[in-house]
Amino acid sequence: MELSDAFAQVVEKHRKSKGFSRSFLAERAGLHQTYIGLLEKGHRSPNLDTAKCIAKALGVPLAKMIEQSERILKSH
Amino acid sequence: MELSDAFAQVVEKHRKSKGFSRSFLAERAGLHQTYIGLLEKGHRSPNLDTAKCIAKALGVPLAKMIEQSERILKSH
Repeated sequence: MELSDAFAQVVEKHRKSKGFSRSFLAERAGLHQTYIGLLEKGHRSPNLDTAKCIAKALGVPLAKMIEQSERILKSH
Repeated sequence: MELSDAFAQVVEKHRKSKGFSRSFLAERAGLHQTYIGLLEKGHRSPNLDTAKCIAKALGVPLAKMIEQSERILKSH
């Protein structure tokens, strides 16, 4: 498992906890909804700037999302 | 300023504080030293998996490096 696979889970968790659809999150983050889908399936490893846009759109500090991702990675 | 520009500063700071050359860090992270040079100049925005390799090679949690980067970004 790579960090981006763990990050995919963390994005989906925060998105659902906010009640955001993939298309709503995509629009807020300035990304295409197909990209959000691919990312949540672990088919994309976002660069730091894209990851930051997603975190901002979710209203969560990126550092917190990375911390949660690193925790998932460690437990695997 | 983008997050990757702030991350560039954070990588360089940690690399120097460890006394690592760019080529030594590159070797530890499994990357090319040219890439580390471009990254530190803010010419590359690493994806999450590459950023994780760099953090691991520096012996610092990636979440901590992102937190420091977000702080630099906020102060600009």
